[in-house]
Amino acid sequence: MGVKGEETRARLIAGTRELIEAQGYFGTGLNRIVAATGAPRGSLYFHFPGGKDQLVTAALTEAGQEVEALLTAPPGEGGDADTAALAERLVEAFAERLERSDYTSGCPIATVALETAGTNEALRTVCAEVYASWQRVLSTRLEAEGFGPAEADTAAGQTLALLEGAVLLASVRRSREPLDHARYAVRRLLGKPGE
Amino acid sequence: MGVKGEETRARLIAGTRELIEAQGYFGTGLNRIVAATGAPRGSLYFHFPGGKDQLVTAALTEAGQEVEALLTAPPGEGGDADTAALAERLVEAFAERLERSDYTSGCPIATVALETAGTNEALRTVCAEVYASWQRVLSTRLEAEGFGPAEADTAAGQTLALLEGAVLLASVRRSREPLDHARYAVRRLLGKPGE
Repeated sequence: MGVKGEETRARLIAGTRELIEAQGYFGTGLNRIVAATGAPRGSLYFHFPGGKDQLVTAALTEAGQEVEALLTAPPGEGGDADTAALAERLVEAFAERLERSDYTSGCPIATVALETAGTNEALRTVCAEVYASWQRVLSTRLEAEGFGPAEADTAAGQTLALLEGAVLLASVRRSREPLDHARYAVRRLLGKPGE
Repeated sequence: MGVKGEETRARLIAGTRELIEAQGYFGTGLNRIVAATGAPRGSLYFHFPGGKDQLVTAALTEAGQEVEALLTAPPGEGGDADTAALAERLVEAFAERLERSDYTSGCPIATVALETAGTNEALRTVCAEVYASWQRVLSTRLEAEGFGPAEADTAAGQTLALLEGAVLLASVRRSREPLDHARYAVRRLLGKPGE
């Protein structure tokens, strides 16, 4: 694929990400994606012969990898003393993203995840795998800090639930307060065992 | 309105609730609601002259009130020793509802809330008010147990975030595990101040 082809593909994914974040899976039609990205319709089917679901899968996967990269940054980088500090920074990153987008860009996975959980098994699986990857990274880091494997998985899952719920409430309320409060809760939930 | 009119209205709301829970706001058209409820199209416009959004508002409000009623049950009823026990019972109720529905019925508000947060100010406000009402009830109960007002509001918001996030993850994963883990976290977050 030439440079231009790569650019068109990237533009289609970026446009799809923006649209599904702002109005979800059912609210985003291919016409909308074509109009928003200015990509020729033919190039959409060239790059994504599977159509909308293949494009949405690419968008979800890319967004998931960006968050995962944030979570796999080596300890100490960005000033994170431990996993609790890293998780707090993730919550803060989501809060800033929401504020910057005037509360339209929440979790890049959540809306599609809820819409497709009962209606589209292939996309549900993509969303589940993204969440599982985030939880695994958090859990592995907690184990390295002395949590037992089961304890680490539980704490990572609780952190993820808190983050997802707080992003949801912050979007709906158009306020970063739920995320600010979630930060304290994360610190409390990820306190070292016995602390 | 006669008994039959009341019945038709209730049937329209119940059908809408089921559809928006399973496939969201954008995925639920009026044709679908008419087909699923068997209500004559004329009766839909008679009871809901505002159309789909008025019907969805009624569905969200009714679902919100059901959860609120659960949260306002007098302490001691249902065996709840305190707000933490009540919140744990709420988490359990959501887990059972998910299991019974083969993981299609999660939070009755969340999907529409995320879909409309950036696209439909009237429905966003309805969802925000439902969440605020749940948080207020929890907060008031926590204050009665010795939390300061700000502390109670924060803890109630954290509990709500945890519940919403865990329901989301449980739906996507088709597993009640995130909710089981959220129960422990709720107990930890709602521990009396100083405990």
